[in-house]
Amino acid sequence: MNYITGAVCVKCGHEQEAAPNTTVCEKCGGILDIKYDYKKIKAALTPQQLKERREQTMWRYMEFLPVEPEIVAKVNKLRVGCSPLYKVDRLADLLGIKALYVKDDGINPSASLKDRASAMAVMKATEAGNNIIACSSTGNAASSLAGNAAAAGYKTYIFVPERAPKGKVSQLMIFGANVISVQGNYEDTFKLSAQAIERFGWYNRNAAINPYLMEGKKTVALEIAEQLDFKMPDYIAISVGDGCTIGGLWKGLKDLYETGFIDRLPKIISVQSTGCCPINRAVTENKPLEPMEENTIADSIAVGVPRNPDKAMNAIRESKGICVNVTDEEILAAMKLLGSFGIFGEPAGVTGTAGLKKAVEDGLIPKDSTVVSVVTGNGLKDTANAIKAGGEPVKLAPDINEFVKWISND
Amino acid sequence: MNYITGAVCVKCGHEQEAAPNTTVCEKCGGILDIKYDYKKIKAALTPQQLKERREQTMWRYMEFLPVEPEIVAKVNKLRVGCSPLYKVDRLADLLGIKALYVKDDGINPSASLKDRASAMAVMKATEAGNNIIACSSTGNAASSLAGNAAAAGYKTYIFVPERAPKGKVSQLMIFGANVISVQGNYEDTFKLSAQAIERFGWYNRNAAINPYLMEGKKTVALEIAEQLDFKMPDYIAISVGDGCTIGGLWKGLKDLYETGFIDRLPKIISVQSTGCCPINRAVTENKPLEPMEENTIADSIAVGVPRNPDKAMNAIRESKGICVNVTDEEILAAMKLLGSFGIFGEPAGVTGTAGLKKAVEDGLIPKDSTVVSVVTGNGLKDTANAIKAGGEPVKLAPDINEFVKWISND
Repeated sequence: MNYITGAVCVKCGHEQEAAPNTTVCEKCGGILDIKYDYKKIKAALTPQQLKERREQTMWRYMEFLPVEPEIVAKVNKLRVGCSPLYKVDRLADLLGIKALYVKDDGINPSASLKDRASAMAVMKATEAGNNIIACSSTGNAASSLAGNAAAAGYKTYIFVPERAPKGKVSQLMIFGANVISVQGNYEDTFKLSAQAIERFGWYNRNAAINPYLMEGKKTVALEIAEQLDFKMPDYIAISVGDGCTIGGLWKGLKDLYETGFIDRLPKIISVQSTGCCPINRAVTENKPLEPMEENTIADSIAVGVPRNPDKAMNAIRESKGICVNVTDEEILAAMKLLGSFGIFGEPAGVTGTAGLKKAVEDGLIPKDSTVVSVVTGNGLKDTANAIKAGGEPVKLAPDINEFVKWISND
Repeated sequence: MNYITGAVCVKCGHEQEAAPNTTVCEKCGGILDIKYDYKKIKAALTPQQLKERREQTMWRYMEFLPVEPEIVAKVNKLRVGCSPLYKVDRLADLLGIKALYVKDDGINPSASLKDRASAMAVMKATEAGNNIIACSSTGNAASSLAGNAAAAGYKTYIFVPERAPKGKVSQLMIFGANVISVQGNYEDTFKLSAQAIERFGWYNRNAAINPYLMEGKKTVALEIAEQLDFKMPDYIAISVGDGCTIGGLWKGLKDLYETGFIDRLPKIISVQSTGCCPINRAVTENKPLEPMEENTIADSIAVGVPRNPDKAMNAIRESKGICVNVTDEEILAAMKLLGSFGIFGEPAGVTGTAGLKKAVEDGLIPKDSTVVSVVTGNGLKDTANAIKAGGEPVKLAPDINEFVKWISND
């Protein structure tokens, strides 16, 4: 059993049944939000019981998830979630805040936070009796779907825009996905995938269409809370593209609040690239969302027409959060900065930290703040930009005298 | 306190004290092996007590490790170890064996098994009062040292051969290491690092010199055993380069056997590349080790002059193990094979699985065998070879008719 009570449309408020293959609102086509019976969850699980659980994956939070435990038990799966939360005191000092924790979600099986959503998609596809899953993605949703579906033995069709980095595409190919590189931008890619999915009846893993994926993503919030012993930070900084991840983060926090696991909600720092920040712009200017160009090296969040702006904007507004936009140079600097503490994130992965740095510098958050910064993807996914950020090594002949000369001048 | 009783030379049998900065045998220069009081370990820890421990890193095996718990507690560290062990039934069927478990060590913070050794190096450097650490490496030892040292706030000097893949080098640069790209092969690189380390008095993280690193690597064996509830498999397949990883694997198994945690020892399947297999050749032909060329795409195990052949050859012989050499084509095929089950390993990372496949095909191991195959590094480290193994995606215009045409012919 699970604790779902139904699905409610974020746009028109219509309530409907939540079937395993439910996508958008049957009335207005708006995005749905899965609803739970929080009283029952509260009765079924206490923080202390959770603490004693041995399961070290996202499935340890079963009562909060929209899936049948028997399905999770039977499907072959990768180990998703329970990523480390590092307390990085020297970086907190450097940034000038009271305390900083970095949640390294690049450590997931396919090396990004998206594994949480894809692992959920595999379970819901199973419940729906469908073993072909499709999606469009700038890369990480795709590779996570390919990997998690491969583990389960399911077939995938994956649509990527032609600019997706080779490292990410190579993952898809290795995982045995049917990959379609679409000669167009993310918007073109999304549309083609939607048409194909409708035509062939595959399970739809497009995060902005499928309400369950955000329920997978929210486990990052559940983990952060548990790792902090349910003492919440003042802020959580996260990069924002399509809007699903920040939406999932906020959903998780609200679930914990509703069930009394936490007694206050952190503010969200929504970080986008200056070259592609339609969500932050809409919130800041308090205007409807307008499309933008996709001009940033942070390809995972280069989404000019976000598919899930409503939940993202709700997360920022409801949490009384702030919006910060960072340049590509600031993103590269954040890669190097986090790297110097042993954490290697991809450009979009470190964008949250870049935004946090900027927010402190611009006085947008108080100096005595406690902050969690989520790193959403591994730097190995995009070594070209890592090389840009890190620079080249010194080249020397195998000769100690030449080495001594170099180090003396270094 | 720890349970070390001293160090014994693998070559001449000389016993000496094990100081934190001890390297080779003071008498003959041979490689040392750290010795423990197994009775005391047995008295201090039972399998049941271990099972109840909450620590989810390699440090959960503290009693088996040559380090002071207070040091481990105080140093800032990444989350190393406790990687997943997947039971992959469909792959076992495909290979024609009774049961197969894949240990995915590419999930470590710097994406390889070497994090286990480097995390140990950081602790021993701390015990030795040294906060500059150096090494030479084909890549993974280097990036793991750079990452783990960065987390601790220590400085590193890292010597890499010029052929090291860019992805690996970019990791070093991001982690803030001082990287020296040596215009020569691994042998030249190793020699230059040794000279520089001696000259400047840095802590030495060359695995074939430093006896503690193998003690870090052995945690992979401790985990496999615990994950299998101490019921050991018939075989463990692993790729072999310098010889330190297979040596560490065997040391861990022997420690468990000596303390009664396991009641039988698995046989080791030592897998090298046909283009560089000096250790397997020496064992198979029962002759002294002779250098070989380094002709393989599996750069992490392309070691023509292994620095730790003694422990490696002991592991194969003592375990009554077998030697298998695989071609680059077989390695690429193994990348694709493991990928189709959701596990993405680098070429050297999947070489153990390639060897297992070959061993079954050649009738070297019985069909009713239970096997663990260790994946030692993440495929994202070497996407060029991943692309070779996986192939390219289909390229299509954003047009549903074109898509339908393609899928009808697929």
